[in-house]
Amino acid sequence: MVSIMDVTIPKKFYHHLIFNLTLIEIVLSGNVLIWPTDGSHWLNIKMILEELNQRNHNVTVLASSATLFINSNSDSPVNFEVIPVSYKKSNIDSLIEHMIMLWIDHRPTPLTLWTFYKELGKLLDTFFRINIQICDGVLNNPKLMARLRKSRFDVLLADPVTICGDLVALKLGIPFMYTLRFSPASTVERHCGKIPAPASYVPAALSELTDQMTFGERLKNTMSYPLQDYIFQSYWGEWNSYYSKVLGRPTTLCETMGKAEIWLIRTYWDFEFPRPYLPNFEFVGGLHCKPAKPLPKVLWRYKGKKPAMLGANTRLYDWIPQNDLLGHPKAKAFITHGGTNGIYEAIYHGVPMVGVPMFADQPDNIAHMKAKGAAVEVNINTMTSADLLNALRTVINDPSYKENAMRLKRIHHDQPVKPLDRAVFWIEFVMRHKGAKHLRPAAHNLTWYQYHSLDVIGFLLACAATAVFLVTKCCLFSCRKFGKTGKKKKRE
Amino acid sequence: MVSIMDVTIPKKFYHHLIFNLTLIEIVLSGNVLIWPTDGSHWLNIKMILEELNQRNHNVTVLASSATLFINSNSDSPVNFEVIPVSYKKSNIDSLIEHMIMLWIDHRPTPLTLWTFYKELGKLLDTFFRINIQICDGVLNNPKLMARLRKSRFDVLLADPVTICGDLVALKLGIPFMYTLRFSPASTVERHCGKIPAPASYVPAALSELTDQMTFGERLKNTMSYPLQDYIFQSYWGEWNSYYSKVLGRPTTLCETMGKAEIWLIRTYWDFEFPRPYLPNFEFVGGLHCKPAKPLPKVLWRYKGKKPAMLGANTRLYDWIPQNDLLGHPKAKAFITHGGTNGIYEAIYHGVPMVGVPMFADQPDNIAHMKAKGAAVEVNINTMTSADLLNALRTVINDPSYKENAMRLKRIHHDQPVKPLDRAVFWIEFVMRHKGAKHLRPAAHNLTWYQYHSLDVIGFLLACAATAVFLVTKCCLFSCRKFGKTGKKKKRE
Repeated sequence: MVSIMDVTIPKKFYHHLIFNLTLIEIVLSGNVLIWPTDGSHWLNIKMILEELNQRNHNVTVLASSATLFINSNSDSPVNFEVIPVSYKKSNIDSLIEHMIMLWIDHRPTPLTLWTFYKELGKLLDTFFRINIQICDGVLNNPKLMARLRKSRFDVLLADPVTICGDLVALKLGIPFMYTLRFSPASTVERHCGKIPAPASYVPAALSELTDQMTFGERLKNTMSYPLQDYIFQSYWGEWNSYYSKVLGRPTTLCETMGKAEIWLIRTYWDFEFPRPYLPNFEFVGGLHCKPAKPLPKVLWRYKGKKPAMLGANTRLYDWIPQNDLLGHPKAKAFITHGGTNGIYEAIYHGVPMVGVPMFADQPDNIAHMKAKGAAVEVNINTMTSADLLNALRTVINDPSYKENAMRLKRIHHDQPVKPLDRAVFWIEFVMRHKGAKHLRPAAHNLTWYQYHSLDVIGFLLACAATAVFLVTKCCLFSCRKFGKTGKKKKRE
Repeated sequence: MVSIMDVTIPKKFYHHLIFNLTLIEIVLSGNVLIWPTDGSHWLNIKMILEELNQRNHNVTVLASSATLFINSNSDSPVNFEVIPVSYKKSNIDSLIEHMIMLWIDHRPTPLTLWTFYKELGKLLDTFFRINIQICDGVLNNPKLMARLRKSRFDVLLADPVTICGDLVALKLGIPFMYTLRFSPASTVERHCGKIPAPASYVPAALSELTDQMTFGERLKNTMSYPLQDYIFQSYWGEWNSYYSKVLGRPTTLCETMGKAEIWLIRTYWDFEFPRPYLPNFEFVGGLHCKPAKPLPKVLWRYKGKKPAMLGANTRLYDWIPQNDLLGHPKAKAFITHGGTNGIYEAIYHGVPMVGVPMFADQPDNIAHMKAKGAAVEVNINTMTSADLLNALRTVINDPSYKENAMRLKRIHHDQPVKPLDRAVFWIEFVMRHKGAKHLRPAAHNLTWYQYHSLDVIGFLLACAATAVFLVTKCCLFSCRKFGKTGKKKKRE
């Protein structure tokens, strides 16, 4: 970090110089530590670290020895610190398979809710055992910690779906920030980030509801919040002990997460229903999207055995450049499992969707796109080829789907600053100012009953009750006294 | 408005072209109608309209015949439509004088609260009679309305402190947006804009509280909200009838205000305490600030008789370029009445303040700056020359004040986009997209009891009560039955 007075600044850093050059600290080159989550989550972080690299920062990624996608096959020079773990890639694969099957077998409805959450709890236990190995692999490795300390990182960027990044940052004495798509029922955002979520119009994550709810749906939504909170807070119990042990004082996972300087949320108002948020939340959905490159002739991605009855006009590919395909002028529709990355590529290019959601946020994502008129959903458990064909015909032939997809595209492209640039701006802001404390709501300093003003309301009720009691007593006393006097007078 | 396919676009419009040129509608030249508020409010709008002018838009201002500051003495060509009114400039002057004296005599404390609001109510009545003349002057003038309709405005930008701008926009069939500093207790922002404000850490406007409150202060704050709501909602009664009459259907002022596409709030997180907000709220505080120009030697602004005991080193000036003075390297401190414009100029240039607040948001503003360690307050009613001198010495000699002022300056200057550019971006966004419906929270479609989920909570309580009742009945029935059987058995 360099404080600038009379330095010639390369043109590429001009975006930092907002209005008055002489008094702003500029990051010429900083050190960024990344705490990623595997799978599709990595694609987002990868874009950020490539951009950070472009802007002359040194980036180091902490990754376990058993990752699926996280690797150094990047275009840009990134340091990797590998954390040895005893589990294998196959364990992660089977965890994800279990997760998918949980949703396919018990997709949460009012009837399956209990089974769903019981099974989810079991999965979270497995996840805990895997995650704790990563934490221990860093925090109990004095050599690695010393090496990290020596690197003098300016900021740690964590995907909090893999827990512990915040803890590593605290141990290194550096500020940290999050990149997050969602937590179930926004438990993390609400309880740890202090974002308000009125149950009357903010649908709980995993509920598949929209911001327009009937009475019954609002009832379901209102109950979803405490139910999911309960599940996650019981899951957090083990983490609370772990965090207290590592930090050497009684604390909780949530309290620690609340210290994040900035929350980069991987959605935007093209996708999200408008809802309250806080100044340290930045919505950077679609930051991985790019203009399409020219395309070879491709039609399908498929891993596995080629079905015997496949038509002559269909070809199978193990991998296709999805973004380029969606950006092709002839792309009429997108059949998608509804991951956030894919949905954002469809929004970016204005392509209507047929959603076949499988797990996690996918059913919610498709519910959002349906509500915005840009998608039709097909149920993976019950669908026939005729259902899929009808859905495809609908989104292709009914012009409203294309119009709505194009409207979302226009919203997405018409922002004051591109999502990736905003994400990197706030990372660099935290580096320049060693945090972003001016964006931190005072709600973090309150207990839950203070936050909801329950002590104040209790006091006011007690005052009112005392007043009613005193007035009643006085009235009774007066009645009795004047009653007696009256009777006396009558007698006289 | 032009939809672009193959047009050469002047370089100055490049900021609209976010990523994909061919499919974005660009406003090459639009028509903007301005509904301003007089006094210091005009300074902010003036900056916006000059910038709009710079970007090739045609700007028309609707102003009454008795304005204080609103005039066509602008550097840029702006159309003025003058609304004839029967009141005079002197009436406005005396209204403002009354307002100042109300605060000086009854500055709201728990003891003076009732008198303060009673007197404020009287002032609001006067304000209503003045404001209604402006409304009638436009809405009941068919020639003017026809002329405005003919001008095909793309958007109306209103300062809602002068009521009716929204109504004019609705009658013209165009989208409208607001520029607003605050409303008392955020009544307008909360009830009409649906912004949440937890009383536990969001201080009510006019309360002079901060985001760090003791129990007693939270008690005061919690009671401030409904009290101020009550005052303002009774004031709104007359407006509700007026709005219903003009629109020819039962409606309220608040419902109409809720249709604003975007709320440009004239503060930012350098000044404001972090609090929840909504995606259609944009914080553009300090948009009027500019780098300082070289300065002639000036020391004081004073209107009135020169005091006899004035020292030889003090000079009086009727007007000084305040921004240039604050930007001068030798400016050590700023003695200010605490208006938002002046405070932002001090933040922009990093100058600590001595606040002598007089009325409206000024006591609040100084409370904010005190809490952020950049100001000392002196009470205008009780101050002696020694108090003022001590305060000045404190902010000049205690380095923490300068440091904090510089910290606020750094925060202010380090934004992804300058406040004025953000304000104009969203005005142009509304012009390009004929609104910003994707940012509008569904809270607007709910009744107050639905919004707070009172119907859902009521239903759940009724269910719980029924369950308790049934279980109790069953238990009693079983006890009686088994009790009898037991007794029978015993007898046997």
